[in-house]
Amino acid sequence: MAHVHAEAKPVSRAQLTAALKATRGKISAEVAGLIEAGFLAEEGLAESDGGRRSSLLGIPRSAGLIVAVDLGATSVDVALTTLGSEILAYRGEPADVRFGPEPVLERVKALVAELLEEQGTGREEILAVGLGLPGPVEQTTGLLTVPPIMPGWDRFPIREVLLREYAAPVFVDNDVNVMALGEHWGGVGRGVEDMIFVKIGTGIGSGIIIGGRLHRGPQGCAGDLGHVMVDPDGPTCTCGNRGCLEAMAAAPAMVARAERCARDGRSEVLARIVGEGGELSARDIGEAARRGDACALDVIRRTGGLVGQTLASVVSVLNPSLIVIGGGVSHIGNALLAEIRSSVYRRSLPLATRNLPVVMSELDDIAGVVGASVMAAEGVIAVRN
Amino acid sequence: MAHVHAEAKPVSRAQLTAALKATRGKISAEVAGLIEAGFLAEEGLAESDGGRRSSLLGIPRSAGLIVAVDLGATSVDVALTTLGSEILAYRGEPADVRFGPEPVLERVKALVAELLEEQGTGREEILAVGLGLPGPVEQTTGLLTVPPIMPGWDRFPIREVLLREYAAPVFVDNDVNVMALGEHWGGVGRGVEDMIFVKIGTGIGSGIIIGGRLHRGPQGCAGDLGHVMVDPDGPTCTCGNRGCLEAMAAAPAMVARAERCARDGRSEVLARIVGEGGELSARDIGEAARRGDACALDVIRRTGGLVGQTLASVVSVLNPSLIVIGGGVSHIGNALLAEIRSSVYRRSLPLATRNLPVVMSELDDIAGVVGASVMAAEGVIAVRN
Repeated sequence: MAHVHAEAKPVSRAQLTAALKATRGKISAEVAGLIEAGFLAEEGLAESDGGRRSSLLGIPRSAGLIVAVDLGATSVDVALTTLGSEILAYRGEPADVRFGPEPVLERVKALVAELLEEQGTGREEILAVGLGLPGPVEQTTGLLTVPPIMPGWDRFPIREVLLREYAAPVFVDNDVNVMALGEHWGGVGRGVEDMIFVKIGTGIGSGIIIGGRLHRGPQGCAGDLGHVMVDPDGPTCTCGNRGCLEAMAAAPAMVARAERCARDGRSEVLARIVGEGGELSARDIGEAARRGDACALDVIRRTGGLVGQTLASVVSVLNPSLIVIGGGVSHIGNALLAEIRSSVYRRSLPLATRNLPVVMSELDDIAGVVGASVMAAEGVIAVRN
Repeated sequence: MAHVHAEAKPVSRAQLTAALKATRGKISAEVAGLIEAGFLAEEGLAESDGGRRSSLLGIPRSAGLIVAVDLGATSVDVALTTLGSEILAYRGEPADVRFGPEPVLERVKALVAELLEEQGTGREEILAVGLGLPGPVEQTTGLLTVPPIMPGWDRFPIREVLLREYAAPVFVDNDVNVMALGEHWGGVGRGVEDMIFVKIGTGIGSGIIIGGRLHRGPQGCAGDLGHVMVDPDGPTCTCGNRGCLEAMAAAPAMVARAERCARDGRSEVLARIVGEGGELSARDIGEAARRGDACALDVIRRTGGLVGQTLASVVSVLNPSLIVIGGGVSHIGNALLAEIRSSVYRRSLPLATRNLPVVMSELDDIAGVVGASVMAAEGVIAVRN
C-alpha cells in the first residue's frame, strides 16, 4: 500500500495552486479555512526551489477518522482511515449478503469496534462512514433499489442504521463506483481525468470517471456495462433482455462453459476438479489455462473478447485515457487482459486508442475500502463548504 | 427563434446566485468584474417579489460580436451574434467542402462581410469566431485530422487564416459537438445536465454533454457513435472495421436499401423517382413512407432500430437525462423517432429510461451556428478569467 501513503503525502500551497488551476489568493483563503476547521495542518517545510521554502500541508490524524466498508456478495472489508484516506487499520473476512442487512451490518459494527480498539480510539473520532454495496444505490436516498442478489436489502435504511450507530454522516454507493473512486485516487488511475474501471466477477459493471469526477448519472445507474447487448440471439439475462454482456461473459457463464469442457472430455484438468466433486470457479479456469489447457483458454478468450468488444463501443463514445480491469475474474491475469486489450484496439478507431492503456487494477482487493473512504472524505469536505 | 432570444434575457444577481450555487459575495464580485470589462450591463429592474426590486443583468450588444460559422459537407451557415449568442443576422447557402479550404473560407469571409454591412458595423467589433466543421478536430491545435470527406483540409491552418482576417480568437470543433452545444444552450436541452445529441445524416455522430459541459475526451474524439459495431458480419465501413452503425444506418445505407426496393419492384413510389433519373435521398424515403410505402418504412425502421440499439448501450453506460435527434435524416420525422425510441426503451434497463425523453432537435438547421457562437463566447469569457 505504499502508493496509498505516497498519495496522501503533504503538499505546499504553491503545488495546490498549480494543481487546482486556481489563483494563489483563493487557495490561501481556502487553506486557512481548512486549517481553522482542523482538516489541514502545517507539516514541515518543502524542499527549496531556490526561493523561500514553503510550508507543507497535510491532513492530520487529529482531523478525525473515516470508517470505510466494502461489502461484496461474499465478503466484507472494513478499514479505518484518516480523512486523507490513508489506511490505519484493515480487516476483511467472508460474508454472505443473502443473510440480509441486520446480521451483516452487526458484523460490520463488530469489526469497526475491533479496529477502533486496535487504534486505541473511540467512535467519537469518526467523521464519516463510506459504504460500497453490491447493488444499485439510489443517490438521493442512499437506498438499494431492487438489488438482484440481495433479497431483504431492498430499501433497507442502511444510512439511518449506521448514522444512529456512529452519529456521523454515511455515504453509500455501489461497489463498482466505489472501486473506481479508489483506483482513481490511490491506484493506477491517479491524476487521470477520464477513466473507466471495469469489474468482472459474478456480474460485470463499471465506474466512470469523467473530468476527474465519478459520473453517476441522474438515476445513479451510469456504468452499467453488464447489460449492454452483445448478441441479439444470446441467452436471456437476469434483467429480462437477451444477450447482455454479463449473461455471456461473467463468472457464471465462464463456469458453465468450463463445465461443458469437462463433461465433453475436452479438458482433463477441469474434468478432474469436477470429478473430485468440486465446483469450478474462475480461479480454476485461470489455473487450467496457465497449465496449457486449450479449452480453459478458449473460455477466457471468449470473455476477454466480449468485454473488449463492449469496451470498444464505450471508447468510441467516451474517448477515455485509461481502462482499468478489476474484480475476481481479473485475477486470471494476462491471458484475459491480453484478449480484452486486443479486442478493444481492434474495434476502436486509431485516434481513440493512440494513448489508451488497458491495465489491471493496482489496489485490487483494497480498491473498495480506499474508494469508500475517498467518497466519505469528499462528502465531509463538500458539506463543510 | 423565439427560444434563442428567451434564453438570452436578462437575469438578476439573485437568480445567478441560485443557478450557479455560489455565494452572493462571489457572484457580486464576478458580476462587478464583468460589468467593468463591458461583458455585462444593468438592464432595468426585476419584477418585485415583495422586497426591494433587484436590477437585471444582460449581455449588451456593445460587448462585441461573435462570428458563428457552421460548415457542413454541402452547406455553409454564417451568423453574427451577440456575446450572449443572440442571432443578429444569419445567412445559409449550399457549399461543397470538397473544393478545399481556400475557396470555402473565402466564401465565409464574403458572407461575414455582408452580415457586418447589414448590421452597419465593421470587423473591429468582432470579439471571437466560432466554427463547426464536418470532421474530427484536434482540440490543442484546432486542426482537422484526416477528415475522410474533406481532402485538402487535413491540417490546414484554419484558425490562423481566420485570426489574421478578424484579429480575434478562433474556436473550432466538429459539427456534432457544436450542434450539441447549441441545442443544450438554446434548444430542447436547456438546463439539462446530461444529454446526448445524435446527428444522423451522411454520417452518424454524437455530442455528449455531461455535468452541463461538452465532453470531448483527451483526443477530442468522444461521441463517435457512428463507429460502434452493431453487426460483426456487417459491411465494411470507411474506417476499415466491419458492421459500424454508420455503414449500416446512415443516409448512404438507407439510399442503397431504398434503391433495392425500387429495383426489385417492391416500391412504386421509389421506382418512379429513380425512373425519372433522380437520385434518391433520405427525404424521398421519408416522403414515400408518409404516403404509406411499406418498403420505405422498412428502411426507416431499420435505421431507427440500429440507432436505438446503439443508443441503448450508451444509455446503460452514461445514464443521460435526454436524447436529442438531429441531422438531415431526422427530417423524416416521427416514423424514425418512434423506432429509435422504442428500440432504446426495449434494450435499456427500466431505471435508466424511467425519465428519458428521446426528442427531435428544436433548433434544427441553426443548432450549428448557435453552438458555434456559444463555444466562442465561452472561450472569450474563459480567456478573460
